[in-house]
Amino acid sequence: MQNAILLVSCPDRKGLVKEISSFIADNGGNIVSFDQHIDEQTKTFLARVEWSLEDFKIPREKIENEFKKVAQKFSMNFQISFSDYVKKVAIFVSKQEHCFYDLMHRFYSGELKGEVKLVISNHEKARKTAEFFGVPFYHIPKTKENKLEAEKRELELLKEYGVELVVLARYMQILSPKFVKEYENKIINIHHSFLPAFPGAKPYERAFGKGVKIIGATAHYVTEELDEGPIIEQDVVRVSHKDSLEDFIRKGKDIEKVVLARAVKWHLEDKILVYNGKTVVFE
Amino acid sequence: MQNAILLVSCPDRKGLVKEISSFIADNGGNIVSFDQHIDEQTKTFLARVEWSLEDFKIPREKIENEFKKVAQKFSMNFQISFSDYVKKVAIFVSKQEHCFYDLMHRFYSGELKGEVKLVISNHEKARKTAEFFGVPFYHIPKTKENKLEAEKRELELLKEYGVELVVLARYMQILSPKFVKEYENKIINIHHSFLPAFPGAKPYERAFGKGVKIIGATAHYVTEELDEGPIIEQDVVRVSHKDSLEDFIRKGKDIEKVVLARAVKWHLEDKILVYNGKTVVFE
Amino acid sequence: MQNAILLVSCPDRKGLVKEISSFIADNGGNIVSFDQHIDEQTKTFLARVEWSLEDFKIPREKIENEFKKVAQKFSMNFQISFSDYVKKVAIFVSKQEHCFYDLMHRFYSGELKGEVKLVISNHEKARKTAEFFGVPFYHIPKTKENKLEAEKRELELLKEYGVELVVLARYMQILSPKFVKEYENKIINIHHSFLPAFPGAKPYERAFGKGVKIIGATAHYVTEELDEGPIIEQDVVRVSHKDSLEDFIRKGKDIEKVVLARAVKWHLEDKILVYNGKTVVFE
Amino acid sequence: MQNAILLVSCPDRKGLVKEISSFIADNGGNIVSFDQHIDEQTKTFLARVEWSLEDFKIPREKIENEFKKVAQKFSMNFQISFSDYVKKVAIFVSKQEHCFYDLMHRFYSGELKGEVKLVISNHEKARKTAEFFGVPFYHIPKTKENKLEAEKRELELLKEYGVELVVLARYMQILSPKFVKEYENKIINIHHSFLPAFPGAKPYERAFGKGVKIIGATAHYVTEELDEGPIIEQDVVRVSHKDSLEDFIRKGKDIEKVVLARAVKWHLEDKILVYNGKTVVFE
Repeated sequence: MQNAILLVSCPDRKGLVKEISSFIADNGGNIVSFDQHIDEQTKTFLARVEWSLEDFKIPREKIENEFKKVAQKFSMNFQISFSDYVKKVAIFVSKQEHCFYDLMHRFYSGELKGEVKLVISNHEKARKTAEFFGVPFYHIPKTKENKLEAEKRELELLKEYGVELVVLARYMQILSPKFVKEYENKIINIHHSFLPAFPGAKPYERAFGKGVKIIGATAHYVTEELDEGPIIEQDVVRVSHKDSLEDFIRKGKDIEKVVLARAVKWHLEDKILVYNGKTVVFE
Repeated sequence: MQNAILLVSCPDRKGLVKEISSFIADNGGNIVSFDQHIDEQTKTFLARVEWSLEDFKIPREKIENEFKKVAQKFSMNFQISFSDYVKKVAIFVSKQEHCFYDLMHRFYSGELKGEVKLVISNHEKARKTAEFFGVPFYHIPKTKENKLEAEKRELELLKEYGVELVVLARYMQILSPKFVKEYENKIINIHHSFLPAFPGAKPYERAFGKGVKIIGATAHYVTEELDEGPIIEQDVVRVSHKDSLEDFIRKGKDIEKVVLARAVKWHLEDKILVYNGKTVVFE
Repeated sequence: MQNAILLVSCPDRKGLVKEISSFIADNGGNIVSFDQHIDEQTKTFLARVEWSLEDFKIPREKIENEFKKVAQKFSMNFQISFSDYVKKVAIFVSKQEHCFYDLMHRFYSGELKGEVKLVISNHEKARKTAEFFGVPFYHIPKTKENKLEAEKRELELLKEYGVELVVLARYMQILSPKFVKEYENKIINIHHSFLPAFPGAKPYERAFGKGVKIIGATAHYVTEELDEGPIIEQDVVRVSHKDSLEDFIRKGKDIEKVVLARAVKWHLEDKILVYNGKTVVFE
Repeated sequence: MQNAILLVSCPDRKGLVKEISSFIADNGGNIVSFDQHIDEQTKTFLARVEWSLEDFKIPREKIENEFKKVAQKFSMNFQISFSDYVKKVAIFVSKQEHCFYDLMHRFYSGELKGEVKLVISNHEKARKTAEFFGVPFYHIPKTKENKLEAEKRELELLKEYGVELVVLARYMQILSPKFVKEYENKIINIHHSFLPAFPGAKPYERAFGKGVKIIGATAHYVTEELDEGPIIEQDVVRVSHKDSLEDFIRKGKDIEKVVLARAVKWHLEDKILVYNGKTVVFE
């Protein structure tokens, strides 16, 4: 299956579906899915279109340039990608291994279509798992003092490996604005609460103290403001008065894993359009 | 908001999105949503398209005929409807009033956009609620002996009121094949189990006996085979060993209500396409 | 079924279960359920015990006094109630009727075991429904100026009717500290968000602006601090980028209804123990 | 934490809680939790009691014998176990590794308190993961012809390692009645459907064909009748018309993992009482 994928947003006006579908049909492409709607508040046209490259007359490498002509006419923000392209991924992890371990198996079993190029951690603990899966592991400790220097090293590694997506799999370090800016909408974090409830440190402790009946997890793109980036996915699990803080943490892990995995999967399959501080997930 | 809605299925081929969107754009319509995908198993094109009638050059009553020209070229099954059209609804109920009562308030509050023209019951019990909402109530008792005669009377009433959708809101009577055929894909039933588990009589009793940990409800179109019609919506709720049979029944009612309400809403908004014994719900 | 129900909390020590169960067995009672655990953080014994009054030697009206002897020895906070006692309930509602309407049907159908003695509203709208169910309706408008006077009238009515539980079924007015204090842990409110996310005004609007993927509802006891009282129950429903603000509000209503109904049910069945600013729900 | 755990069922009569709690208190034990209720249909007393062994006068190895005196008086079925006892576990797996891999990490991280003594598979595939976790791996291929012989070898290994719990982590082989009888209520299987819907082979295929809107997974004790044993836990996930069969399988894996993990956890913590073909889970 070799498909091209178009993600597009622009001011709404008549004829946009016709323009896009004509571009595809007139060049011999067959549309597999056309998922479009309008944000009524801002009158914005939002769409994800996927079409088969079989018999498509424009060669892959020229599609983006060719489509630009359509895009410019309608002030479109757009992105062209390909279903068979395998993105290069870096995973950052600290001491809690459950998300990291879960992700690695999903990559390994082919459920997630990406290539984990390297694992970076501020601890040694995850090395064993990384090596089991044959992925280079870099131990880069972080202190208040060496933080920027450490980040410099990290950024060098990301460049060296050509990384296109950074996954923070319970990486308990805050990235600098500079780092975040270099990978805008390309860093996915898992926060162990149902945001915007309990942002920041120790969310389970605070949820436990508050006596909530449900706990959650949130995957989001990282922005400069802590735990404020566009939310990609959330899920919850029920807790009761019989659950101790340890039970909260244990139950929470199961949703952290699936929520992060779903977000990573959608990103890798180009199903997420960031728009107006929110995400459109063409699931 | 005056929109036209197209539901369409046909063998997949190149250019279908272009054809449909050109039909709309060339006649001055603005597409609000275009939701299309392909059933890979049968290579079938499936879509729901909604467009604004503001400035649309073809008058409403002629749209269907005009679109037929496109449809015939591509062997399309299609249906055109209008977002401001208010469908005429009949509700059938027996003694259990919870779904009926819940639906009535949803119609009354404007959440469901339909007009309940009449209520039919084999018992007197629901009369009070029907009258509270100002809806004609018909008490048509049913026995083994009078069943077909009773149905004849029911069908007459449905015709008299011009009913377009029949909702069986826990109506504990099986309709005859003749009745079902006259309202194909226009009768929605709520079954109080997670189908295909526990079809037929006494599902809660059997779920209780089996010791399941979750119970469910299923809304489906009625076909000749009992509880076998295309599933529109399902939902579940957790039960535990502490729950008695009465608790199963009570908890189940809450999901019966929402599952039926969602199915009715989607039908009234022309979001359901029946295809290959299954439903496509363009939610 | 005539059962006595004991809710009890006290510092943990050896022999407490034996003491309580001996009190019951030695007086001829048969325990139906004994649900006990320890809060490990505070070393507090927490239990709900229900036993049959058939053959119980102590007459109902003397049980509380007799148990006091046990309670004092172990510094127990306790409450004795009876499963066949029907609590007197007042419902407060504003313009949004969905929770009110839903509750009324649950009381009417016998699902909720309480007697709705009166309905109070700052608008006329709910009168029709109240009268349908034969419940006295009081229209008490509220302005900044007359608020305390209006509350005085409300409190008089609650006393006159002997009200034991006040349910705020989307009553969009903040009660004064004086009011709250008179009905401590006896006023249940439904807040239309997943607390502690989005306390206060317009939670759906803020959830929509934030781009959350799940919305929730929270039932809690009312305390002086707005939306900060002990949480009784919460639930959530999934939303997507296709959902408008109106969809958020509509989907939210369904969880508001069930969350409030569950909380009221548990309160009426003496299943809730408020402890340390949280609730223990012996479900 | 050294606690004793009593699981008990018997015909209901007065004084049972007193008898049990007196046995504990009179011997110096402190009850941590007493979770008891009555099955009203069969008038059966069901309870799980956990108490601290600190200061408990009866030595561990004699508790069972001492309690027998109480048990015999009241025809109790009971089991005594200890919270610090680590059960010996065998995992059976075929080619699908997701549940196996997930379980291994839960054991490894201490979430599951058991010791995986060996892994048995009819394929070589899982060897790598077993070895990563340092667990002996036995490849025992199965054909129609060698089935009983292979089982004999398996049973020998289980005995040799003193296995107390067998987990079928997507082991696609049916065990013989003889095997099942030797480990009654000690073999946990994960079935990839919401039982009793879709028992037997290819449940995802059948769910897809049926057009269900929700799929599920079920963990149960294995009995002689296929997929008919006492259900321990179930959970579900939503699917839509856009999901292919592959999506059903992928989404299903996530619930298979958590459902099996919960069931194994509850078994290892002696929270499950099998009674009347159903389970009571003292969660």
